[in-house]
Amino acid sequence: MSFRSNRIEFEVEWGDCDPAKIVWNPRFFELFDRGTWSLFQTVLGVPRQNLARHFGIASIPLVEAGAQFMVPLKFGDAAELVSRPTYFRRSSFAVSHQIFKGGKLAVDGLETRVWAGVHPDDPERMRAATIPSEVIEQFRAPA
Amino acid sequence: MSFRSNRIEFEVEWGDCDPAKIVWNPRFFELFDRGTWSLFQTVLGVPRQNLARHFGIASIPLVEAGAQFMVPLKFGDAAELVSRPTYFRRSSFAVSHQIFKGGKLAVDGLETRVWAGVHPDDPERMRAATIPSEVIEQFRAPA
Amino acid sequence: MSFRSNRIEFEVEWGDCDPAKIVWNPRFFELFDRGTWSLFQTVLGVPRQNLARHFGIASIPLVEAGAQFMVPLKFGDAAELVSRPTYFRRSSFAVSHQIFKGGKLAVDGLETRVWAGVHPDDPERMRAATIPSEVIEQFRAPA
Amino acid sequence: MSFRSNRIEFEVEWGDCDPAKIVWNPRFFELFDRGTWSLFQTVLGVPRQNLARHFGIASIPLVEAGAQFMVPLKFGDAAELVSRPTYFRRSSFAVSHQIFKGGKLAVDGLETRVWAGVHPDDPERMRAATIPSEVIEQFRAPA
Repeated sequence: MSFRSNRIEFEVEWGDCDPAKIVWNPRFFELFDRGTWSLFQTVLGVPRQNLARHFGIASIPLVEAGAQFMVPLKFGDAAELVSRPTYFRRSSFAVSHQIFKGGKLAVDGLETRVWAGVHPDDPERMRAATIPSEVIEQFRAPA
Repeated sequence: MSFRSNRIEFEVEWGDCDPAKIVWNPRFFELFDRGTWSLFQTVLGVPRQNLARHFGIASIPLVEAGAQFMVPLKFGDAAELVSRPTYFRRSSFAVSHQIFKGGKLAVDGLETRVWAGVHPDDPERMRAATIPSEVIEQFRAPA
Repeated sequence: MSFRSNRIEFEVEWGDCDPAKIVWNPRFFELFDRGTWSLFQTVLGVPRQNLARHFGIASIPLVEAGAQFMVPLKFGDAAELVSRPTYFRRSSFAVSHQIFKGGKLAVDGLETRVWAGVHPDDPERMRAATIPSEVIEQFRAPA
Repeated sequence: MSFRSNRIEFEVEWGDCDPAKIVWNPRFFELFDRGTWSLFQTVLGVPRQNLARHFGIASIPLVEAGAQFMVPLKFGDAAELVSRPTYFRRSSFAVSHQIFKGGKLAVDGLETRVWAGVHPDDPERMRAATIPSEVIEQFRAPA
């Protein structure tokens, strides 16, 4: 079974690039973060700035992120980010982020995040919470 | 056998943090990049801006990066980045980047990079080159 | 007389915001830079990554930038950047960057840049060059 | 009369630079922000992450920022940021940020900020507050 995905078209800007004239890798992790928020907004139908409040959580912090960089992206390149969950566990989930340039996979990334509430002992800390089943259900629905 | 390492002390700035009041993950990948350049400068004794020219290469582009985030870092936190190669292959190498806060491992990252020359057919492209044995030797020397 | 303008619609992402939950000011200067490149691409009809080569220059480096921040932007806000030259001199020009949120002026910025060629004595340096009159003419044409 | 200043030494990293191989301008505004927080920490003797709580304010948001870029900074350059207030008004103040490279003024910036409390009608908004006279006094004391 697969999950619903989200697609973001973007272009590479001057400031995304480093002196080697290709996108500097942290920029891809910025994109992945944007991709996850956008995916949740699209699939759950809740503006991303309201997701935490809507579901009574603090945030969806990252516990792991990684990427393979296969094809460099350059200033002015048009590309596409496709974000899709790969699994949901009790309180964590993973999101695949694939960037395509001219239909070819250029960057293959993965984020693992936690569904986190405010810690009962300290409002400054977060603690893993159970992902509501209706959240997972909405990701399962055919697009 | 282990390789020589490099240590960078840093503090978390306001702009490194997101609305959850912790460091936003792409900032760690920015630090890893800084760590690799600094490691090569320290161990090889060549200013990092001259490394490419000194060794006749184009750059040391990333092919893979990843990290686990165990302990959040917050505005004003003092921390330490320890960067150390984990292996050298013919034309690629990996660098471990560990961030410690109060002596505790907070972020555990890894970069894989290529020793890349200018492509003979296209000055705008790069191509894997053989890492000089004296480069690897210097990393092997006891600190 | 006024010059042609360019319009970019954007939304504020999580990573654009700081712990005060508003856009961190350097992000606006990133947007201004994107706005200038996009303005030149749109008005001159040359992909922005080819502008330097097309006109035989090195780049269009900044000599001054500034902004007033009137209304804070927050995560998820939809906004619009309008970029328009305010003047062209022999080798410099200024671009106004105004960001509107809900039709209201939120950020009012200005960049001053130089039309710069490669320095004849040093390929690593830049030197002011004369802006071609046909460039200025295209900005003057009615939109 | 002049105010106490703060000095930060830094080096230009790979990722601070753009395809023109010089520091990309938004990076300077990132530095200015760091300079202001550091200045307040140094002069007031309160860790910068505690300044808001210590003085019962929400933050010190920017209302204006600007800079002139005179000398480009490149990868590996060592430089120094000197930050110093230029005036204090009832609820606003300005901070000059000068970056020196080899003793020469390379970037000349200015920020204007507001001493802002939480808005009484809406905890999500800020409102100008009176800068405590003891804050201003500490900036006046001879270094």
